[in-house]
Amino acid sequence: MNQSATEKLIIFDTTLRDGEQSPGASMTKEEKVRIARQLERLKVDVIEAGFAASSPGDFEAIKAVSLAVKDSTICSLARANDKDIAKAAEAIAAANSKRIHVFLATSELHMKMKLRMTREQVLEQAIQSIRFARNFTDDIEFSPEDGYRSDPEFLYQVLEAVIKEGATTINVPDTVGYAIPELYGQFILDLRNKIPNSDKAIWSVHCHNDLGLAVANSLAGVHIGGARQIECTINGLGERAGNTSLEEVVMAIKTRKDYFNLSVGTDISQIVACSKLVSQITGFVVQPNKAVVGANAFAHASGIHQDGVLKARDTYEIMRAEDVGWSANKIVLGKLSGRNAFKQRLQELGVSMESEADVNEAFARFKVLADQKAEIFDEDIMSIVSSAEQDLDEDFYQFISLSQKSETGEQPFAKIILKHAGQEHVTEAHGNGPVDATFNAIELQAKSGTDLLIYSVNAITTGTQSQGEVTVRLSKGGRVVNGVGTDPDIVAASAKAYLAALNRLYDPSQEKLNAQMAP
Amino acid sequence: MNQSATEKLIIFDTTLRDGEQSPGASMTKEEKVRIARQLERLKVDVIEAGFAASSPGDFEAIKAVSLAVKDSTICSLARANDKDIAKAAEAIAAANSKRIHVFLATSELHMKMKLRMTREQVLEQAIQSIRFARNFTDDIEFSPEDGYRSDPEFLYQVLEAVIKEGATTINVPDTVGYAIPELYGQFILDLRNKIPNSDKAIWSVHCHNDLGLAVANSLAGVHIGGARQIECTINGLGERAGNTSLEEVVMAIKTRKDYFNLSVGTDISQIVACSKLVSQITGFVVQPNKAVVGANAFAHASGIHQDGVLKARDTYEIMRAEDVGWSANKIVLGKLSGRNAFKQRLQELGVSMESEADVNEAFARFKVLADQKAEIFDEDIMSIVSSAEQDLDEDFYQFISLSQKSETGEQPFAKIILKHAGQEHVTEAHGNGPVDATFNAIELQAKSGTDLLIYSVNAITTGTQSQGEVTVRLSKGGRVVNGVGTDPDIVAASAKAYLAALNRLYDPSQEKLNAQMAP
Repeated sequence: MNQSATEKLIIFDTTLRDGEQSPGASMTKEEKVRIARQLERLKVDVIEAGFAASSPGDFEAIKAVSLAVKDSTICSLARANDKDIAKAAEAIAAANSKRIHVFLATSELHMKMKLRMTREQVLEQAIQSIRFARNFTDDIEFSPEDGYRSDPEFLYQVLEAVIKEGATTINVPDTVGYAIPELYGQFILDLRNKIPNSDKAIWSVHCHNDLGLAVANSLAGVHIGGARQIECTINGLGERAGNTSLEEVVMAIKTRKDYFNLSVGTDISQIVACSKLVSQITGFVVQPNKAVVGANAFAHASGIHQDGVLKARDTYEIMRAEDVGWSANKIVLGKLSGRNAFKQRLQELGVSMESEADVNEAFARFKVLADQKAEIFDEDIMSIVSSAEQDLDEDFYQFISLSQKSETGEQPFAKIILKHAGQEHVTEAHGNGPVDATFNAIELQAKSGTDLLIYSVNAITTGTQSQGEVTVRLSKGGRVVNGVGTDPDIVAASAKAYLAALNRLYDPSQEKLNAQMAP
Repeated sequence: MNQSATEKLIIFDTTLRDGEQSPGASMTKEEKVRIARQLERLKVDVIEAGFAASSPGDFEAIKAVSLAVKDSTICSLARANDKDIAKAAEAIAAANSKRIHVFLATSELHMKMKLRMTREQVLEQAIQSIRFARNFTDDIEFSPEDGYRSDPEFLYQVLEAVIKEGATTINVPDTVGYAIPELYGQFILDLRNKIPNSDKAIWSVHCHNDLGLAVANSLAGVHIGGARQIECTINGLGERAGNTSLEEVVMAIKTRKDYFNLSVGTDISQIVACSKLVSQITGFVVQPNKAVVGANAFAHASGIHQDGVLKARDTYEIMRAEDVGWSANKIVLGKLSGRNAFKQRLQELGVSMESEADVNEAFARFKVLADQKAEIFDEDIMSIVSSAEQDLDEDFYQFISLSQKSETGEQPFAKIILKHAGQEHVTEAHGNGPVDATFNAIELQAKSGTDLLIYSVNAITTGTQSQGEVTVRLSKGGRVVNGVGTDPDIVAASAKAYLAALNRLYDPSQEKLNAQMAP
């Protein structure tokens, strides 16, 4: 296939794989399925659902995503060995359309320090891995990890060999976020020009944002280099400073179609919903001045109408907020709404529940919330659904009730009732604030010995009646987990978030291979 | 001056001007002075301290910054008219080194829709404004607003004329964030090639981040276009998706010195302190995956040590966290620390207090905090200082005390005592959470009729004993204000933040000209 002739740009989302590698962003199987369904509504071409061999939890999540998603290709990452590749193939077996993504480092530094392999060994292993992957699918992607810092002459050899062996997509990762747009674009162009069979593969870019250049590098890889796939994540989630932001790169391609002249299949009206869902599940806030999806990204979304904007929209706007899914919060439901109205709204929000019992449980939570809060927004419904999906094991900690008080000059106090191993436990404690007292009370029972790294609260909707969404990040023995809790009472939400983090910490399916970092 | 011969890149920080234009980011005079002092420690070349004619508050803040800062050039923005320019000149009169920055729109759209002026009128006004500005200083910057979308032929005329008239810096704003790196770089190169006297001015870039390309566009303006000044803000603060991030663009220039071959005077060890200070004052959170200054920007800062990182730092790191000012939180002070230790730490943190009475007041707050919290971090000290600096007028609301409680199944309750107009007022209310109850109690007294747009909490330091830092964003009649409050008790911190926002809303010096948006 001749790349210059094709006008289609493939959007490859790796929120569930590279995004999840971000410390504290680990997700449960159910959460990954929920995000994958939303990515399908966004019409991304490929969903990298995980790294099957990295953990049993990842393997199961990829399987579940493969069953849940029909329209997007499902991909699993794999190191360049038979065991990893077989595991990846098994995980995506049920998908309508499947891809295996094999990676192997090619930079001198990585080969020497991490792999402890020679060039010859790396070349041979790359070839063998593609040959083996061909047993399971024809859609095979190969990434020379740290490719951008590799010796080009060696890359020519490796990439020509893997294309010959059947790799259909060649991804060139800037693993450490070191590239400059024009250099990265030229690097890819050189690879395509120097490798005789380069036209047999789609070329792909995978950039990291350490210097704030991931989007620009990706676009240069496409425009200068001729790449026709961009790897990206929702909100730019990912290790360190993250990956290329899907919303930014897609809106740049769309807004500057005059320059890029490429088509993407993305349904941009789903962008804000995607952003909110990923932020809510991971507890990673989106800063107000984040492009496209930040609360301030469109001036008028913040209640500000500048003179210029009123006189002519084009004066200051190059995109329209409503096109990417920003809209005023609609009051969709209230106290008097019935089960059918609730169920219909769930469907409109793209939430499919497995059984009527699940709907009933979520509806019961809705009624409790509607008693506390007159106006129920879409975000509230999403948070109800999140809680409803947590089927807790007996081994986990479950929130039963909390009572807390504080008064200027007195020591704040909290009393909590938890359920654990089938039994209710009551503990009480003081602290330097009501949240601290609550966490102290939980720790009297849990004795986890974790460190609290991050504590943050965001209101889910605007207005004083909003629910608080609390994120707690705990670390223990090198593992970092986030827990998210929602409640109109932020002290109760804090307790729920702390328990969610503890439960995640003790969940064996969340244990990950402390692998070589992937591309 | 021949630009290709100079190796120095000028860093022009506009956090206090363009950054402050971000809805909700307005700052008091004291806050601006604090940020300006930190920018001076960061060794930025130029500090744009405000837009003197836009409000009395802005005028006073620029005056105060001009007095406080010795090493950086102080700049005020001005529209291209005598009144604005005279006001700017007056505001910066006390500065050691002063610049006036005149702007006037040159794009067809802006001239027609906003200015309602012809090309001839715009050209004439540009010339007159520079001639007038020359009465006050030789350091004059001119920005053709929306320059990137202007007709190049017209720009050649205007820019040649203003350089002839004495403009020493020509700034080319991409006001709406529409540019693509290679095009923007080429645009500036063309201007420099086509304008006969272009070598008589320093060329400058000013980019917005709507498509996530502000940093890349700025770098292309420098590398391809030959610009030698970058306009940027801390944390990329600014209207909509913000401006070029100072930290990203500076670290790109430093990290890729092999490519850019430019020197910047910035003391990068002050970057993280700047970022935290601006975030704390404005209440704008920095997302964890923000480049350079996000909590996750350096993997190991989050407690994660990947195998690769341990084997060789260069495997995954292109910058070192400690170089930009990330360091482990140090316990600097505790309950037993005396006044001298406290005062010395203040000096080390670069905080200078105007009188011994101010030190005493801050120390008293420190002792109260040390009773509640065993370990006092630098961030805690900074928050004590912030509170100490708020000298409240009688007309403002002052927090006296709060008592609140909540219990699962019961209606949360709060009772608050406020001081206003010399009198204490007690109110109590219920709500759907303790924070809601607190806000309701405040509103019983204040009756402000504002809308709550954003509510968020971040812990200032790690650990359960941390203080909560609450940001509340209120809007009323088109004005948007943020208030920040800190307290170990997050409900009390919420009350303080709400009151701070109300006080800001009622502060006449904070009223701004709802001006044409500046570049």
